[in-house]
Amino acid sequence: MPILDLRTGPVELTAALVDIASESGAEREIADAVEAALRAQAPHLEVVRDGDAVLARTHLGRSSRVVLAGHLDTVPVNENLPLRRTGSGAGEVLHGLGTVDMKGGDAVFLHLAATVPAPRHDVTFVFYDCEEVDAARNGLGRIERTLPGWLRGDLAVVGEPSNAVVEAGCQGTLRVELRCAGARAHTARAWMGSNAIHALAEPLRRLAEYRPRTPVIDGLTYREGLQAVRVSGGVAGNVVPDEAVLAVNHRFAPDRGPAEAEAHVREVFAGYDLTVVDSAAGALPGLAAPAAAELVAAAGGRVAAKLGWTDVARFAALGMPAVNFGPGDPTLAHTREEHIAAAEVTRVAEVLGAFLAP
Amino acid sequence: MPILDLRTGPVELTAALVDIASESGAEREIADAVEAALRAQAPHLEVVRDGDAVLARTHLGRSSRVVLAGHLDTVPVNENLPLRRTGSGAGEVLHGLGTVDMKGGDAVFLHLAATVPAPRHDVTFVFYDCEEVDAARNGLGRIERTLPGWLRGDLAVVGEPSNAVVEAGCQGTLRVELRCAGARAHTARAWMGSNAIHALAEPLRRLAEYRPRTPVIDGLTYREGLQAVRVSGGVAGNVVPDEAVLAVNHRFAPDRGPAEAEAHVREVFAGYDLTVVDSAAGALPGLAAPAAAELVAAAGGRVAAKLGWTDVARFAALGMPAVNFGPGDPTLAHTREEHIAAAEVTRVAEVLGAFLAP
Repeated sequence: MPILDLRTGPVELTAALVDIASESGAEREIADAVEAALRAQAPHLEVVRDGDAVLARTHLGRSSRVVLAGHLDTVPVNENLPLRRTGSGAGEVLHGLGTVDMKGGDAVFLHLAATVPAPRHDVTFVFYDCEEVDAARNGLGRIERTLPGWLRGDLAVVGEPSNAVVEAGCQGTLRVELRCAGARAHTARAWMGSNAIHALAEPLRRLAEYRPRTPVIDGLTYREGLQAVRVSGGVAGNVVPDEAVLAVNHRFAPDRGPAEAEAHVREVFAGYDLTVVDSAAGALPGLAAPAAAELVAAAGGRVAAKLGWTDVARFAALGMPAVNFGPGDPTLAHTREEHIAAAEVTRVAEVLGAFLAP
Repeated sequence: MPILDLRTGPVELTAALVDIASESGAEREIADAVEAALRAQAPHLEVVRDGDAVLARTHLGRSSRVVLAGHLDTVPVNENLPLRRTGSGAGEVLHGLGTVDMKGGDAVFLHLAATVPAPRHDVTFVFYDCEEVDAARNGLGRIERTLPGWLRGDLAVVGEPSNAVVEAGCQGTLRVELRCAGARAHTARAWMGSNAIHALAEPLRRLAEYRPRTPVIDGLTYREGLQAVRVSGGVAGNVVPDEAVLAVNHRFAPDRGPAEAEAHVREVFAGYDLTVVDSAAGALPGLAAPAAAELVAAAGGRVAAKLGWTDVARFAALGMPAVNFGPGDPTLAHTREEHIAAAEVTRVAEVLGAFLAP
């Protein structure tokens, strides 16, 4: 098992975490390393293990509690392991799977766990598994069922990459399947049938011409989206196909719930057979909470809207204000070229250190 | 191995062949049964096996030779096996995969092979594999390479369904793939990418609005077609896809060759990336040949244009007149409801029996 030195600084810790491969479903090794490091190097914390998640918390009797949550898993390797480094000093860059999404954030949290033994707020650390796969497998969802008390607090900070800017709320996501029906026939006698793939012309036209909303909520601008993510249809090379399916992903701002988002998508595709595959509510910014306002102040006052769906929505659903705050450019997540500036990891560690300073 | 009784009559033989499932690529069992039956029950024929094709011929020293050819394979099962029967006597109907395309025709040929030992013309029977898939896998194409002498003659009769009417010539077929490119991005930040599936809207519109030609050749009317046969694209449920592929099948009248047909399809899809997957020339009607005229007379004088591509084109390319003549309604081919009137199987057997009678 690799040994993690939590005091070595968040950049070195990011590098060490990246080099423990941890594709979703294969997080045991990294969870073992995190658990062992917390037990040995942060003796002031209560530590529990739940599957391949590791949780740790203070019991200082503070009047408020902050939850710092980060997932340990990554998407599959894409020729981007082991870690590579370029540049040096203030210009150093770490390249590799998970640098951005989100071992940089995990490293900051682990470093704070060992080096800030008496924070101003009580703190709960949650390092969890299976964020990059189906919502049903999400480790945080499992912890809600097995250890619900551990997730409660007055503010949740999810360390997903946000360019070291506090990102408030998150957009919801809805997946639907649109199905066109036809009638099979031999292509040499196509007029006897009806081509289900041809029938996709109109829904695809609506998609191509769709203009998404950009609502402003609490001063933050969200950008919605409606995108085909899969299309399939066809029986054989000489058969007029009788079915074609278009899968569409709608990302919606948190002023709408999943039901309103579904109604909107049904309106866009009026006249078509639509099935909802899955949906997840977004989260409103929630910046009025005192601990959230303190974090924004510590980060220099800048706040942006979170566009991707993240697990802040799970905390919002528990009635807690929740924000994203982590190092790294989210547009690099899930790309082969994933990389992070060492300086940004350090900056996030400094902001959170100031926020938690006694 | 099922035993085929070639003397039982073409209707019972059709039923027996239908109940030997033989999707393209899985014709071994039916070929074994056909080969064994010919060797045992038609000892006057020279029999050879080539892969999952079976060939048999007379050597009577006649002044002309007729080739009777039928494929043994079917499209995939579609809840239409085993065989069902409805009605009785002259009104009996056989339901199931392959009844029409083309085990009815195969049954007629097998019955004649065993029951007409001294036909007026020398006869070559060709029962072959993989007609329903890519032309490159076509069993007749393989036989052209391995046993070319076996396909030569003065007339080829391909037993594809033609409503028991002699159908002359056939349309050509061309398959192309149209590829739309885009750029991947997370669906929460879709404007960073470009959706390749959305880009299919325009080519699908052109397909949906396409009006095919209906040229008249030698008094026979052909009907062309341009049909999507497959569509695919998609990376993951939260990724803007960077590629989408549309496969299109063009059926063209025999006044155009494959090169002209390709030029036409490229014009329809001008501006798009197009790859030709396969193509096969059609065949002009070739009714002037004496044996063809004799067959038309035996069938009562009616002739129609063949719309589907059939292997008559392969014989036409060898310089032989070739016609389609078989029982069954070709518009039922490749449908779940495929069925054939027993009386039509009997009628084709009678016409061909008269044509071959010494």
